[in-house]
Amino acid sequence: MRIIVDAMGGDNAPAEIVKGAVEAIREFGVSVTLVGREEEITACLKNERAADLDAKINIVNATEVVEMEDDPTTVLRSKKDSSMSVALKLLKDGEGDACISAGSTGALLTGATLIVKRINGIRRAALAPVLPNGGRGVMLIDCGANVDCTPEYLLQFGFMGSFYAKNILGCENPRVGLLNVGVEETKGTDLQTETYTVLKAADAAGHINFIGNVEAREVLFDKVDVVVTDGFSGNIMLKTIEGTGMFVMSNLKEIFTANKRSKVAALAMKKRLGEFKKKIDPSEVGGTALLGISKPVIKAHGSSDARALKNAILQAINFVNADVANEIVKNIELMTIPKAE
Amino acid sequence: MRIIVDAMGGDNAPAEIVKGAVEAIREFGVSVTLVGREEEITACLKNERAADLDAKINIVNATEVVEMEDDPTTVLRSKKDSSMSVALKLLKDGEGDACISAGSTGALLTGATLIVKRINGIRRAALAPVLPNGGRGVMLIDCGANVDCTPEYLLQFGFMGSFYAKNILGCENPRVGLLNVGVEETKGTDLQTETYTVLKAADAAGHINFIGNVEAREVLFDKVDVVVTDGFSGNIMLKTIEGTGMFVMSNLKEIFTANKRSKVAALAMKKRLGEFKKKIDPSEVGGTALLGISKPVIKAHGSSDARALKNAILQAINFVNADVANEIVKNIELMTIPKAE
Repeated sequence: MRIIVDAMGGDNAPAEIVKGAVEAIREFGVSVTLVGREEEITACLKNERAADLDAKINIVNATEVVEMEDDPTTVLRSKKDSSMSVALKLLKDGEGDACISAGSTGALLTGATLIVKRINGIRRAALAPVLPNGGRGVMLIDCGANVDCTPEYLLQFGFMGSFYAKNILGCENPRVGLLNVGVEETKGTDLQTETYTVLKAADAAGHINFIGNVEAREVLFDKVDVVVTDGFSGNIMLKTIEGTGMFVMSNLKEIFTANKRSKVAALAMKKRLGEFKKKIDPSEVGGTALLGISKPVIKAHGSSDARALKNAILQAINFVNADVANEIVKNIELMTIPKAE
Repeated sequence: MRIIVDAMGGDNAPAEIVKGAVEAIREFGVSVTLVGREEEITACLKNERAADLDAKINIVNATEVVEMEDDPTTVLRSKKDSSMSVALKLLKDGEGDACISAGSTGALLTGATLIVKRINGIRRAALAPVLPNGGRGVMLIDCGANVDCTPEYLLQFGFMGSFYAKNILGCENPRVGLLNVGVEETKGTDLQTETYTVLKAADAAGHINFIGNVEAREVLFDKVDVVVTDGFSGNIMLKTIEGTGMFVMSNLKEIFTANKRSKVAALAMKKRLGEFKKKIDPSEVGGTALLGISKPVIKAHGSSDARALKNAILQAINFVNADVANEIVKNIELMTIPKAE
């Protein structure tokens, strides 16, 4: 298996990206294609003393880099020789099995859609991160790719999330829930009530396990495996979780470091606190899958360090092995809402 | 000043409601009208040894109670003698200055709108809780009263929130932000881009201090005083904050109580942890204001204990003193979007 990595994407590129790739090769035995400015990548590899891995590492030169301030919808056309563009073209051309980038989310999404293409019949690709919930994790789909959604998009998110949760998270019969402001089926806007109906029908037909509406406060408590929502609400939820976590943790840090006594006390719990921090660290999960694209594309966090990148490669390996795209293709007819006559 | 309290609303009614009212009378010198089953209220008052407060306490009998399973949109018509209906009618008739209930949010909102009525020109009343942010607090408006909104509703939420933040939270020049998935003005759905334009215009005219779009992860970090959003997203945000807080705190509790050593360590930080818990406790803030109603109506938490109810009464006192409704009335023309010809 060969994973294509955009070596220039993210805050810590290329050094940490290359380092993470080298670690992944050593740990998982996978082959990696590093895309970006060849000289810089070569210098990083030298730092990693990776000469013994030559057979597993391929460098593809790309002279340009997608910057965060570039317009995500046009940059891949204007920077055709950017590492992200080239990486996605390599994936499209079968020169690797999955593609990872820690660069601009919007550009990667646009590029994946235009270059690698969506699965035939899938209306929109979705950003689908897996959040820690004390269990196997909970997928939030969509989280910002599509601020405007239709019931059909959401139905497809439910199916795609269900396949991912079953094949990659290891949920036997993934619980699919619709994010809403209450559990009653009349709650929400037209989007939610209409989506409720089509998800319910898919459940009745035995295609997915729809457990109904879920409220935002339940999401992290391992009561649902796949949370279906439009990209606007999903993004609000995801970033609220991040913000609230940061708020609580920064307040606790103040308490733990307030004086000598509290520092000693915190030390006594250091191991468990570290485990908890690791448990809720998004880097542990890897990156965010772009579901609905014909081949595996993963967005690694912009702030990815080597460990996060390595975990994103592991996620990509699982993604390839599970062949989620194929399961989506096989079931595409179940995910379509016939147009009203 | 006289505060009308629905003595039968909430999980701990009537005992904790009556207790909180008695404490508020003693602490703030306010008069209270308790509405509900007279016998039960009298028994609770006896428990509180409140005989000396007779001059400040008024009991109004109401035989029915709004239950959580009642349809919020019709219950006040079918239960005309419910404590909530009667309390709202007393407010409408000028038999008190503000009304508080810990009962069904939906029923209170419907009742406030139908019985007390909206301020002339205000399109929709909003649920506007104030969340702890380490500073004066941040108002989230709307949080669930209106899942479908127009730019005009949101413009009005911005003004109403700004008046509340200035007069009650003590923000001199409240920073009004629009909840969105990015800071650029093109972000979001049509609702956000159109609302951005009207809020920007209100800022340019010097009516409010609009600071632009705010992302969900910034909301708790004292960068914004009033977060304007539709009731769907606002509710998702509010409940995500609650859920994430619960998730982190329950994990920490496990760590703190894991063994003897960690218990001793936690004890060393007990005071500061307690202060933090208090800082983020929504009961400290009181309840949630219903903004846009012609007289002050406050929704206390369903789980309110005496302390939360007492704080809701303090909030009601401030609400009455600040006369926010009057400021809204005076400025109503600034909050109207002329219909397109």
